[in-house]
Amino acid sequence: MTRVDQGAVPMAEVWRGGLLESTHLGHAVICDARGIVQAWGNPAAVVFPRSSCKMIQALPLVESGAAAAVGLTDAHLALSCASHQGAHLHVEMAGRWLADLGMTEADLRCGAHEPADREERDRLIRAGDAPCQLHNNCSGKHSGFLTATRHLKAGPEYVEIDHPLQKAIRAATEEVTGETISGWGIDGCSAPNFAMSLEGLARSMAAFATAREGHGVRESAMHRLAHAMARYPELVAGEGRACTELMRAMGGKVAIKTGAEAVFVAILPEQGLGIALKVLDGNSRASEAAIAALLVKLGVLDAAHPDAQKRLNPIQKNWRGLVTGELRVAPGFV
Amino acid sequence: MTRVDQGAVPMAEVWRGGLLESTHLGHAVICDARGIVQAWGNPAAVVFPRSSCKMIQALPLVESGAAAAVGLTDAHLALSCASHQGAHLHVEMAGRWLADLGMTEADLRCGAHEPADREERDRLIRAGDAPCQLHNNCSGKHSGFLTATRHLKAGPEYVEIDHPLQKAIRAATEEVTGETISGWGIDGCSAPNFAMSLEGLARSMAAFATAREGHGVRESAMHRLAHAMARYPELVAGEGRACTELMRAMGGKVAIKTGAEAVFVAILPEQGLGIALKVLDGNSRASEAAIAALLVKLGVLDAAHPDAQKRLNPIQKNWRGLVTGELRVAPGFV
Repeated sequence: MTRVDQGAVPMAEVWRGGLLESTHLGHAVICDARGIVQAWGNPAAVVFPRSSCKMIQALPLVESGAAAAVGLTDAHLALSCASHQGAHLHVEMAGRWLADLGMTEADLRCGAHEPADREERDRLIRAGDAPCQLHNNCSGKHSGFLTATRHLKAGPEYVEIDHPLQKAIRAATEEVTGETISGWGIDGCSAPNFAMSLEGLARSMAAFATAREGHGVRESAMHRLAHAMARYPELVAGEGRACTELMRAMGGKVAIKTGAEAVFVAILPEQGLGIALKVLDGNSRASEAAIAALLVKLGVLDAAHPDAQKRLNPIQKNWRGLVTGELRVAPGFV
Repeated sequence: MTRVDQGAVPMAEVWRGGLLESTHLGHAVICDARGIVQAWGNPAAVVFPRSSCKMIQALPLVESGAAAAVGLTDAHLALSCASHQGAHLHVEMAGRWLADLGMTEADLRCGAHEPADREERDRLIRAGDAPCQLHNNCSGKHSGFLTATRHLKAGPEYVEIDHPLQKAIRAATEEVTGETISGWGIDGCSAPNFAMSLEGLARSMAAFATAREGHGVRESAMHRLAHAMARYPELVAGEGRACTELMRAMGGKVAIKTGAEAVFVAILPEQGLGIALKVLDGNSRASEAAIAALLVKLGVLDAAHPDAQKRLNPIQKNWRGLVTGELRVAPGFV
């Protein structure tokens, strides 16, 4: 098994006053249906995909018939693939979803954390309220987990590694990546997260990109999830966030998803390509720059778009608005 | 001039589920009065010290006689070397300091940002108040800058590169590091930040460590500043922060200071040693682990102390309190 620190290459640099201040190394892989098209760093590096694999984790929800049984819309599916920022929009939608199932926030197993959405955060503080599990960035994924769990008539502890839902996710993960999982860890939201090679992750994204509606249960589910994400960028992350802004900038033609510790994936249906990348040190300023650079390279993102520029070459300003430095894509990358 | 990305070595690793998830590279140097004692990575790497050089930036304040003229205490000097978290304690003290000078918050040039202190942050949100410049983590440094500026009878724009105060800081920087500065950038607080080799930064910390009271203006100022920091750990950062907790754990015998983009320095008077380190990717979880490991190695920090363990081997728990992973000092480092 190849450790993630083997063979990483420069991906992004932070400059200040004409001098290099910090550097980020990483790995990136582009795959089509047959395998690797191009790679930087080490495609064999084993990574935890973290939240970047939420569309894989949503496969049993769709494939089991659970989503259809309760009439989930594409918006629900987009939220099930989201790392949302706990804005009113997200919290309200997850809450209604659970209510429609006859369940409550207490059925979730993701835990509660302060929402990243500033307005909702401040509203809670002013009201003297604590955040609830609906504010957790994974509450959509967990609402999907609960929907699938109920359909499978399985027990309430749906994040246990031996729970039928997690077994189904593990099987789906191995099938779409084309490899046996390399191990597993517990994610921030308590769900198991299965380790895989970066190549395997990119291959699975290519499978999402090439999946055709009406060609069997698996392909139909992959097609629907990828298109749901691209259609509802505001549900997948939130205002100001890279996933939302870059998907909007690409006009709904590409689905992208970030994961903790600086993983990023992309699904390009028109090109039949999948991308996966990991920044070695886990910093998302670098993974956002790197995914934007790859999307520009593949012709689906306009480098001149302000939301692309914000990631490709963010200008750092200080508290008085003075320019202090900038992040640049490393010269050798892409 | 040696770029910071030349020759960095593994410093800290993040593990999850028995697999390496992320890695941080960097450089570290230990100096005594004669030069390098031991180094990891590349001591010639040029870095921006950022806030880790605040005790150097405070030298003109003391050496000019400005501090004595207005009767600044050691607590004021500790705050002038601080990256505080804008808690009530810090804001109130900086405000009184300015009032005693007959000045106001509007004379500061650091800009305003939301305080890291949770209680003060929430108080502002509940009151519907915006943070002011006193909340800026550098407001103590800037209060010192204003004190020195007034004493020098210089103009109000004290962060300009050609301002007499910044010229004095530049001269002091070159003298204590023993090298010509490699360039300069603008810091988050708008002050110039002078680039130097990591060796130069470590050498300057050794100079602080070996400075004797009563041996001339420079040594007396260095001695006083280092001891002021070690004596008031709560003023240098704040509750829960690495600088504050580790200085407390070392019983006031060592002064340490973090800087943005993962710089850390330490001044060890009893050992006559200075430390400087930089994590290549700018992540402070790694710089905190690395400085703690070096302080343990040098015998001034008890590895078993809970506040040392919090940095040497922080256990990552998720939102439900489940253990998900841990950070470890890299096997080859220290």
